[in-house]
Amino acid sequence: MYTLYYSPGTASMVVHLALLEIGAPYRLELVDFKSGAQRSSEYLRLNPQGVVPTLMYDGRAHVESAAILLMLVDRHPEAKLAPPRGTAAHDDFLQCVVNLSNSLAATYRYWFYPADLGAAEHPPPVRAALQARIEAVWTRLDARLSAAGPYLLGAEFSGADLLVTMLMRWSRNMPRTALEWPSLKRLADLVRARASWRRLYELEGLTEW
Amino acid sequence: MYTLYYSPGTASMVVHLALLEIGAPYRLELVDFKSGAQRSSEYLRLNPQGVVPTLMYDGRAHVESAAILLMLVDRHPEAKLAPPRGTAAHDDFLQCVVNLSNSLAATYRYWFYPADLGAAEHPPPVRAALQARIEAVWTRLDARLSAAGPYLLGAEFSGADLLVTMLMRWSRNMPRTALEWPSLKRLADLVRARASWRRLYELEGLTEW
Repeated sequence: MYTLYYSPGTASMVVHLALLEIGAPYRLELVDFKSGAQRSSEYLRLNPQGVVPTLMYDGRAHVESAAILLMLVDRHPEAKLAPPRGTAAHDDFLQCVVNLSNSLAATYRYWFYPADLGAAEHPPPVRAALQARIEAVWTRLDARLSAAGPYLLGAEFSGADLLVTMLMRWSRNMPRTALEWPSLKRLADLVRARASWRRLYELEGLTEW
Repeated sequence: MYTLYYSPGTASMVVHLALLEIGAPYRLELVDFKSGAQRSSEYLRLNPQGVVPTLMYDGRAHVESAAILLMLVDRHPEAKLAPPRGTAAHDDFLQCVVNLSNSLAATYRYWFYPADLGAAEHPPPVRAALQARIEAVWTRLDARLSAAGPYLLGAEFSGADLLVTMLMRWSRNMPRTALEWPSLKRLADLVRARASWRRLYELEGLTEW
C-alpha cells in the first residue's frame, strides 16, 4: 500500500498520475500549503526539504518526483510506463525523465519563487531570461515531437509523457503557454484524454488546465 | 566500446569517473569549448543542447550526466556502483542522484552563466541568493553524512559519491567551498583517494582540486 503526500496540481501530480495508471492501491494525504504543513516538524521528518511529493511504502519515505517515477515504473513493469529495461528505448526514457527534471523543474522553481533569487519580484531582465529558458525547452521538445511523435518516445506512451504534461500545465499562466507549440499541444491532448488525468482532476479538485 | 565526448572538469567528469571505476574500454573525444566546438553542427547532431557529456555506444548518442550514470550502473552491475536493484538502498541511490542533479546542477548553471539570467554579472542579491541555495544543499548533505556516513548511502561507496564530489569541486572558487563542511570534506577525501579520481586528473590534465 502506497501513501502519497500531495498538494493539488504540484509536483506530486506526476506520482499521483503514475499510481492511477498502475492501478495500485494508495492512500492520499493532503499537505496543506496554506497552513504551512510542508514545514511542520512532522512532515520535515519525512521530507527534509519540505516539498511534495513524498511517497511512503515499505515503511520508508521516498522523495523527488522524478526518482519516484523511476521507482514506480520499475516496481510495476506490467503497467508499461516505460520500455523494457536494457533496450535503447529504455535509455531514451531515462534521458527524457532526467532532462525534463533538470531543464524545467529548477527553472520553474525560480520562476514561481522570486525569493529564491533574492527578490520579492523578478526584475524584468531576470523574468525575461527565465521565460526564455522555459520556452527554449518547449521549442526543443516540439521539434523532437514533430520529428518523431506523438509521444516523447515516439509511437508509445510512457511515464515521461505524464511528467512533461504536468510541466506544460505549469506554463498555463505564463506569457506563452506550452500549448502554443503544436506538437506539444497534440501530446497534451492525448495525455489529458487519459482516464488517469481525468480521475486526478476529480481527486485533486482541479479545474483549470 | 564507449566514446566519451568530454571537456576537462565539467559535467562529463562523473561519466568519465564511472567508466574508470567500471574498467570498461572507452575512447575520449575532447569537445573544445575554447573554439566553440560544443556549438558545431556536427556536435549538435549528437547533443542538441550543445553540452557535455555525450556518451556514444551501440551506435547511439546518450546525454545527461545523471541519466548516463544510471545507465552505466545498470549495464555494469559487477562494478557495484549502486546497491542491487529492488532493494531500499537502490531507491536511496536513485533519489540521491536525481536530487543532486535537480538541486545543484541547474543552480550551478545560473551561478556560472549570469547570461542565462539576463545579466552580464549577477546583481549582488541574486548572487547571494544563488550562493545561499548551493550552501543550503551542503548543509543538508553534511547533516545526512554526519548522521550516517561516510558515504551518501552510508557505509558503502556508490556512483552517487562520484557525482557529489564532482559537484563539490565546482564550489572551489566560491566564497565558501563545500570542503568547509566537515562530513563533506571527509567524503571528498575518500573519493579523491580513489584510483579513478587520480587517473582522471592525469587524463583530463586537471591540477586544482
